[in-house]
Amino acid sequence: MRSTELQIIGIPGLPEVAAGSRLDELIAAAVRSHGIGVKQKDIFVVAQKIVSKAEGRLVRLETVDPSPLARSWAEAHGKEAAVVEVILGQSRRLVRMDRGILIAETAQGFVCANAGVDASNVPPGSVTLLPEDPDRSAAELRVALERQFRVPLAVIVCDTFGRPWRQGLVNVALGVSGMDPFMDYRGHSDAFGCRLEATLIAAADELASAAELVMGKTAQIPVALVRGFNYPRAEGTGRRMIRPGDEDLFR
Amino acid sequence: MRSTELQIIGIPGLPEVAAGSRLDELIAAAVRSHGIGVKQKDIFVVAQKIVSKAEGRLVRLETVDPSPLARSWAEAHGKEAAVVEVILGQSRRLVRMDRGILIAETAQGFVCANAGVDASNVPPGSVTLLPEDPDRSAAELRVALERQFRVPLAVIVCDTFGRPWRQGLVNVALGVSGMDPFMDYRGHSDAFGCRLEATLIAAADELASAAELVMGKTAQIPVALVRGFNYPRAEGTGRRMIRPGDEDLFR
Repeated sequence: MRSTELQIIGIPGLPEVAAGSRLDELIAAAVRSHGIGVKQKDIFVVAQKIVSKAEGRLVRLETVDPSPLARSWAEAHGKEAAVVEVILGQSRRLVRMDRGILIAETAQGFVCANAGVDASNVPPGSVTLLPEDPDRSAAELRVALERQFRVPLAVIVCDTFGRPWRQGLVNVALGVSGMDPFMDYRGHSDAFGCRLEATLIAAADELASAAELVMGKTAQIPVALVRGFNYPRAEGTGRRMIRPGDEDLFR
Repeated sequence: MRSTELQIIGIPGLPEVAAGSRLDELIAAAVRSHGIGVKQKDIFVVAQKIVSKAEGRLVRLETVDPSPLARSWAEAHGKEAAVVEVILGQSRRLVRMDRGILIAETAQGFVCANAGVDASNVPPGSVTLLPEDPDRSAAELRVALERQFRVPLAVIVCDTFGRPWRQGLVNVALGVSGMDPFMDYRGHSDAFGCRLEATLIAAADELASAAELVMGKTAQIPVALVRGFNYPRAEGTGRRMIRPGDEDLFR
């Protein structure tokens, strides 16, 4: 049996992204300037932050009028009331509001801290929101990148999320296009001929995590290319990776 | 800025592992038979399953005498009573016991389904337990592999766990040796000079997830090599990746 190999290539050199920036053009220019040839079925993993910026998903805090709830929570926990107000506005349900931590279910259905509202790597006085529809963002970028490179590709829009039970953040897939987000071993047999029962692997999340290892939070590498992962081509969505609320024992 | 690149290399060709197998020798033979040169700071990611087998962490179900609780839960949800009994025996606390799903805090402190007890890829009539001390397993294997290859290395012992809120399993790090399991950006400044506040990245979990992409559940690739990740060398533990119960909002 041959050894299998995956490459994870960080793409530096993107300029600062602004509302209306054409990400496909910026990514293509950065890829070409590093002499990286793009191959069929390469997967572009793109940080939510630049997608949100390109889509104009920034809020200037001076335009925000905090509610009494936002004010009291901010005061009790040393937060900025305008930021808390933006978080509440991005939430369709608060899962936990405890010890200064706000875990929300976002309008898109994600469960994460601060409803994905983030003040890092944005101009002071502003915060970014998650893309309105990360699957649409991923699909549009995939089509544009396929036009740039003339090969079938996949795109994952990712963000770093915390999780219960374990310390630290990991990158997960918010939007997915061009691939099935799962590897489904259910019904396959193991080496002893036993049927595997519950093995549905969240491949798109693992790809997002792998990409994060070359991204770095301060190094401004918001895009990585994953090469050598043999996925089944599919329309794909990140939405399918969200566990439905009524099947979830932890909200 | 140069592009950064990571390689994830699956190591096939390990024989079936039994109690007492020397994993360092089996891994070294498989690596050499594929002509893969091992380099300084390469990270070996090793599936819990073969570590548990080498350590004799198998239970033959015919030796198990199920308690009334195990019997009633098994009967209510179509499970095998002996397997449920083994799960209860590996648990120090049950976090959820609902809709046929058993989420336990294990003796080692992990929170996961079925206390990590697993019937896949083991001889019929047996189940594997998690290693008694995955950090010790990782440390012993690291020292042995460093002796084999004569370069400093890191080892991660991993398993696929489910998680709240999101569908599908991802690989996480149970035991870690030779590296800091985190990338800690707290106190660093972003591109706009803002201090990053909460950015502690669970690098060892992301490395485990990356490795899983070349492992495959049925392909019998229980070991992967990650090359090119520039980690700070440290004693390292996987135990530090477990969120303390009193800081956890979800148990």
